Amino acid sequence: MIFSHRDVNLILDAYEKGKPFFLYTGRGPSSEAMHVGHLIPFMITKWLQDIFDVPLVIQLTDDEKFLWKDLSAEEARRLANENAKDIIALGFDVDKTFIFSDMDYIGSSPDFYRTMLKVQKCVTFNQVKGIFGFGDSTCIGKISFPSIQAAPSFSSSFPQIFGGRKDIQCLIPCAIDQDPYFRMTRDVAPRLGFPKPALLHTTFLPALQGAMTKMSASDAVSSLYLTDTNAQIKKKINKYAFSGGQATVEEHRRLGGNVDVDVSYMYLTFFMEDDDKLKQIREDYSSGKMLTGELKKELIGILQKVVSEHIERRKQVTDETVKEFMTPRKLKYNY
Amino acid sequence: MIFSHRDVNLILDAYEKGKPFFLYTGRGPSSEAMHVGHLIPFMITKWLQDIFDVPLVIQLTDDEKFLWKDLSAEEARRLANENAKDIIALGFDVDKTFIFSDMDYIGSSPDFYRTMLKVQKCVTFNQVKGIFGFGDSTCIGKISFPSIQAAPSFSSSFPQIFGGRKDIQCLIPCAIDQDPYFRMTRDVAPRLGFPKPALLHTTFLPALQGAMTKMSASDAVSSLYLTDTNAQIKKKINKYAFSGGQATVEEHRRLGGNVDVDVSYMYLTFFMEDDDKLKQIREDYSSGKMLTGELKKELIGILQKVVSEHIERRKQVTDETVKEFMTPRKLKYNY
Repeated sequence: MIFSHRDVNLILDAYEKGKPFFLYTGRGPSSEAMHVGHLIPFMITKWLQDIFDVPLVIQLTDDEKFLWKDLSAEEARRLANENAKDIIALGFDVDKTFIFSDMDYIGSSPDFYRTMLKVQKCVTFNQVKGIFGFGDSTCIGKISFPSIQAAPSFSSSFPQIFGGRKDIQCLIPCAIDQDPYFRMTRDVAPRLGFPKPALLHTTFLPALQGAMTKMSASDAVSSLYLTDTNAQIKKKINKYAFSGGQATVEEHRRLGGNVDVDVSYMYLTFFMEDDDKLKQIREDYSSGKMLTGELKKELIGILQKVVSEHIERRKQVTDETVKEFMTPRKLKYNY
Repeated sequence: MIFSHRDVNLILDAYEKGKPFFLYTGRGPSSEAMHVGHLIPFMITKWLQDIFDVPLVIQLTDDEKFLWKDLSAEEARRLANENAKDIIALGFDVDKTFIFSDMDYIGSSPDFYRTMLKVQKCVTFNQVKGIFGFGDSTCIGKISFPSIQAAPSFSSSFPQIFGGRKDIQCLIPCAIDQDPYFRMTRDVAPRLGFPKPALLHTTFLPALQGAMTKMSASDAVSSLYLTDTNAQIKKKINKYAFSGGQATVEEHRRLGGNVDVDVSYMYLTFFMEDDDKLKQIREDYSSGKMLTGELKKELIGILQKVVSEHIERRKQVTDETVKEFMTPRKLKYNY
């Protein structure tokens, strides 16, 4: 699930010596329907928060989605709230976690805007052109947006949480495609006198169709949604999940399945908690002892549980709860 | 004092038929010392507000000055407050006028940020490149800044004043060099479903050295500051104000002075309220009846009065008053 990292060793060494840090991750709310792949960075983030007991800020970039997609500002803001419910359903602690919509928080925090501005002063068009592929026909909102994704890496953006301290280091668990934003952020940090954020890159859950594709929330056939019924999950995996198995049972028994391309097996590496059992499945499937149908059945059972439990927990998340998480406030930590 | 305009006739026609409008002007707080030339757009703005009794918003672009100048964010914000005192000293009514610092107001108003975003989505790098001369080495903050100067042209940026109405038209009195921002704003307005702002361009007060130069706050020799003593005013005008008079008294009596290049005469056209007297001076100076020294004496007297009265009024402006003007709030108008 972890692809690579930058400076995570340093931040954890410093933590052991008593130096505080905080976690930052985010999501671009482009649709109501999150899929199971979206859970990965948040699951890792929650795991980190549980272990280290540190503040977490979660940015919902509704402004980004307004700028990039054919969405009204109001609709993007609404989707941020819907996605917040899915995130909260993962079990984050309201005393340790601040979730914010850019459209609301930028307009509620002069310190966030000042941090944005400081980043904006350090980054030229030439730089973002190279990093993000911007050109002359790019709108000026997109051009300055990278500063908005950079700002939460710095504790100065959250005086209500960090009591005005600007030196608390940040650890960002994120999908690998977000790396360009944070490479830029790390370049800028020393010039602003802020600590460089450390990064933990998570891999993408591939689309059902194959390992080289990314699950997309806007493609119903390639994605397992967090709203799918048990029957839909069963059908999608049986019908679409790319198999590393052989054409016939006889051949499969003889040659075995190829776990390196088998999407169901890859999903199990994300969602199966029992490592011994996973190892056994790998052996049995590779040797031909386990058939594709049996492998898929394992996965279906696990995902049905993951999704139906998610649906249940999401139902418990009220608008009131969302509001609590999204209110700028002090968390349980003192600085 | 008025150089040109766009659509002012339309906005005033509509006003006569009962359609409301509001005034918007601003200042970039790059230094503590404002000079007398800075008064011009504000004097015209005040005159318009007195006549039409409409709301006025005044933008202090401390973010712009932070981005363009070698200033810290904190220093730019401080200068905004100092400049606000000079503006308030002109006699604006706190029940009709909202003064704001970008650094504070953007971080206090989700609606302002949304209006900015909507402008940002409509304007490409290509456009701002052409209008403002931006290039690849321009920082991304400057590139998106035009959206920040555009936003106050739309009543959606001030829900506390306009009760959420997005259709109140705006009249912008401003120095002619600000026109590029507002041409861009007028281009964008219809695409956002907002009314185009009308514009009233004021001319620059020339520097003392001559008519083709602009008075600059950072050049002590070319500028009359709003903090100058009577002696300084007298000395600067006598010593530096470019004269359209002749080399000797005899020549002057014979040929007369040239009011078209005489800086003291130009200043009188800005600051002398008695039009008949101004006309008489023009005739007497042109004919040679009035000498340069006599003309300068008229101007010195008027400016000493303008500046010393300004200093007195500015002393009355407390931090408390500044805070009142700068607090986002409803004004005395209902929508």
